[in-house]
Amino acid sequence: MTEQVLDRAARCERRFNGLFAEYFDRLGATLDAPSFSRFTPDCLQLLRDLSLRGGKRMRVVLLHEAARLVRDDAPAEALDAAALSIELLQTHGLVHDDLIDDSATRRGGPTTYYAYRERFPHHQQAALGLTVLAGDLALALSLRVLLDAELPAELRQAMTEVQTRAAADTFVGQMADLERDFGPAVTDDDVLHDIADHKTARYSVLAPLRLGLLAAGEQPGAHEAELRRYARLVGICGQMRDDYLDLFGDEARTGKPVGTDIREGRRSYAVVRLLSALEGSERALVEGALGDPACTPETLAAIRGAGERHGVPGLMRAAMRRHAEQAGRVAAGWRPRWRDEAVTFFEQLPLWSVERDA
Amino acid sequence: MTEQVLDRAARCERRFNGLFAEYFDRLGATLDAPSFSRFTPDCLQLLRDLSLRGGKRMRVVLLHEAARLVRDDAPAEALDAAALSIELLQTHGLVHDDLIDDSATRRGGPTTYYAYRERFPHHQQAALGLTVLAGDLALALSLRVLLDAELPAELRQAMTEVQTRAAADTFVGQMADLERDFGPAVTDDDVLHDIADHKTARYSVLAPLRLGLLAAGEQPGAHEAELRRYARLVGICGQMRDDYLDLFGDEARTGKPVGTDIREGRRSYAVVRLLSALEGSERALVEGALGDPACTPETLAAIRGAGERHGVPGLMRAAMRRHAEQAGRVAAGWRPRWRDEAVTFFEQLPLWSVERDA
Repeated sequence: MTEQVLDRAARCERRFNGLFAEYFDRLGATLDAPSFSRFTPDCLQLLRDLSLRGGKRMRVVLLHEAARLVRDDAPAEALDAAALSIELLQTHGLVHDDLIDDSATRRGGPTTYYAYRERFPHHQQAALGLTVLAGDLALALSLRVLLDAELPAELRQAMTEVQTRAAADTFVGQMADLERDFGPAVTDDDVLHDIADHKTARYSVLAPLRLGLLAAGEQPGAHEAELRRYARLVGICGQMRDDYLDLFGDEARTGKPVGTDIREGRRSYAVVRLLSALEGSERALVEGALGDPACTPETLAAIRGAGERHGVPGLMRAAMRRHAEQAGRVAAGWRPRWRDEAVTFFEQLPLWSVERDA
Repeated sequence: MTEQVLDRAARCERRFNGLFAEYFDRLGATLDAPSFSRFTPDCLQLLRDLSLRGGKRMRVVLLHEAARLVRDDAPAEALDAAALSIELLQTHGLVHDDLIDDSATRRGGPTTYYAYRERFPHHQQAALGLTVLAGDLALALSLRVLLDAELPAELRQAMTEVQTRAAADTFVGQMADLERDFGPAVTDDDVLHDIADHKTARYSVLAPLRLGLLAAGEQPGAHEAELRRYARLVGICGQMRDDYLDLFGDEARTGKPVGTDIREGRRSYAVVRLLSALEGSERALVEGALGDPACTPETLAAIRGAGERHGVPGLMRAAMRRHAEQAGRVAAGWRPRWRDEAVTFFEQLPLWSVERDA
């Protein structure tokens, strides 16, 4: 990506962070809560804290770039409402995911679930309940921000449809993600591709694309197949990269411990490739470690070594590159229908995102 | 209520149950799930089972009667979409509530949470996760059924707004409901009224009223204050009645064990009234039993006896009647603006519902 594009993305991130903070500043006054309730403002504060700890806001950047495919002066009201909806849906997902996974930290702070557990150490069931409700509320807010926006009725409706559909697809994808680690072992990339598509690509890539086009006055339905294909490929690249870094990444650079997927028994892209590449005692090592929370750093290092001897990291990097190049070709096909500068962004994004710190 | 009205309600219930079953028959085909996934159809089956075990469908009856305030030939497409949305939102609420309360049974069968726990006895965290996701999916479906309906764009949008707002109000109400049993004791009916309003009346009474009026071509916003007032009073009556029956009800008739609120430490209308009526050893008896899951039937009988000696059941029945009569007067004020027959329904409903088997 060029300096110019990275600058544009950084400006977009800063602008959105200001907008998101303002949204939460106003929210307490617009939400009709019983006046005695302290739990409601407390919940809004937790949702705010988690939301404002967001990273690069890549979904918001995708949204803005999608609008720029059509024009560079799409109405700010539409883009702002869509951006808030996208990131509130993400907040919803994080609150519930971290409960589902019983995770303690997220975005460098406590998860909502653990924040509530700390507030109510003697009422763990209430902490669970408040976490469920906080996530439910974020989901309702992510739709209300669209329904309340000062936009033409048709646009509001189309955007609400996009987000409701994205939410349902994601929930189905998360069920499939839980299912992956039950029953017969996954040996097939297609299953992992379908999960990455449903669980991540639909709300993180496809929905921002659709919303950006809508904001710019385009009908995304006319380009449905290629948008889906692009989003799916980008989603697959993103998941492969996460799975790759989880086993073969450099802890010092990623800031995350390696081997989480193996310890949790997740049949990630890396695990599936390891199992198909290894035999005998090396394979037994992986099978023994899968789902063992006490798996030692030494065992993980041995598994990494075995994977490297059999070329697994190289195979994974090649697969990521292949999918990224495919996605880039899909985007290249958007010329000359759409504006060259934004097409270039979508063309370069996939390869940039798999290679940026590989 | 007259025989004629009860007949109309029974027909409405039967018709809706057929519609709801058909909705679930079609749902699998319209939901875009990965082809390998067995968890997705399994989840839809659990949502279907719970949904179709619904009781009297009073919310759907309210919806239809609200439309009849304006005309008796409101378009079936609008009423059907609204009815499905209302009951899917209810399903969402039941799935998450039963997780929040760790309840095992609901509507004469297992809760979704316990159904999953039974399926995955060695994976309780996955059971929790699937329950969260099943509830999330039901919430998304309750909005999609409106967004997908073949209705004029403005009507679809207005109905979606009603349901999204009802959902958010309910989540806030549930938080306030959890909050009630923390911190300083509630001694004040206003707090309980606010909780009943937010937690129940908004989605169970106000939303069906608004949706029925919208389906009939009326703008509910023009009558907002009186609709809210009616819904709040009906919600308060319903909650008072539940709380009354929970302590002073006849187990043989209600089919539910008495004393659940006391055992769970819930500061219900009955508990608050007991605490303000009793002194000395009688009051100490209640305070000792509150939140004690092992509280014996003998203790509960003693508490009931003390309550009866101090006239608590009579006070509660009088309060219910007073609120029901107030609600009836609000509805009576809808003459002659709205159709007499349906106004009569709303006028009689509150008193009928608090006295039907008292």
